[in-house]
Amino acid sequence: MSQDVTSQDAVQDHYLPSDSWCFGCGRLNEHGLHLRTFLEGDETVTHFAPRPHDTAKPGSVYGGLIASVIDCHSNGTAAWAVHREEGTEPGSGPSVRFVTAALHVDYLLPTPINETLEVRGRVKEMSARKVIVASTLSAGGEVCARGEVVCVRLRT
Amino acid sequence: MSQDVTSQDAVQDHYLPSDSWCFGCGRLNEHGLHLRTFLEGDETVTHFAPRPHDTAKPGSVYGGLIASVIDCHSNGTAAWAVHREEGTEPGSGPSVRFVTAALHVDYLLPTPINETLEVRGRVKEMSARKVIVASTLSAGGEVCARGEVVCVRLRT
Repeated sequence: MSQDVTSQDAVQDHYLPSDSWCFGCGRLNEHGLHLRTFLEGDETVTHFAPRPHDTAKPGSVYGGLIASVIDCHSNGTAAWAVHREEGTEPGSGPSVRFVTAALHVDYLLPTPINETLEVRGRVKEMSARKVIVASTLSAGGEVCARGEVVCVRLRT
Repeated sequence: MSQDVTSQDAVQDHYLPSDSWCFGCGRLNEHGLHLRTFLEGDETVTHFAPRPHDTAKPGSVYGGLIASVIDCHSNGTAAWAVHREEGTEPGSGPSVRFVTAALHVDYLLPTPINETLEVRGRVKEMSARKVIVASTLSAGGEVCARGEVVCVRLRT
């Protein structure tokens, strides 16, 4: 990521309406999680407070939610990477939207359900249509999971 | 898997009550997906009908749900594998419950939301406390995703 982009919005705030129905991160999906990915320096960050029913065992978060948050966060990170590379603000030019080709999650510790989850992402590799994003998911200051997602840019 | 086990129940029907709160497959989680994994010969199968809001883009299923279904199905498959190995019916002896150490999903095609998803699993590797499960997720007869999950047995 090379250019200075200073938006205080989440990248998902500017996805095209037709690209905003994802259960994880679509702002138009009224039943969804409404995940929002922000740029912080060379990293990206998404926060999510689990609901009481997002349990694995009582007290911990189920793995599918962790995978979902890492997944949408990574595609948001890939979109941010393109905006940084091109020096554009989200929403200011052609649509930048990625989808997942492959998702890998290592579950390191039980993830407490009463803490806000923080996912931080970094670009590991980037080419014309593919971005590989590495991320950590923390709760209460401890890294509970690590993710790696291969994101492929949708043609517009 | 070596022994003949003929239960018509899903393995999750016999998880201990304390192990039955998972959002994906816990029968006691009233908000959850209630995934149920059945044995069919040397394979396992789980079916799930996506809800209208489980969208990626309109018409297709979001990746987090696919990861969730593969995740719970794989842990159910690992439990079935132990029951087959030991020649026991679920619920007939000590608790057999696995959790996810690592999850990998390759998304091959958009997964149509108006079809019932079918996940089929097979044991790839098995040791005393760890089972690796390979699975396919199909919709409308097409394989849309492949998963591989490292499942670790909970100590009881």
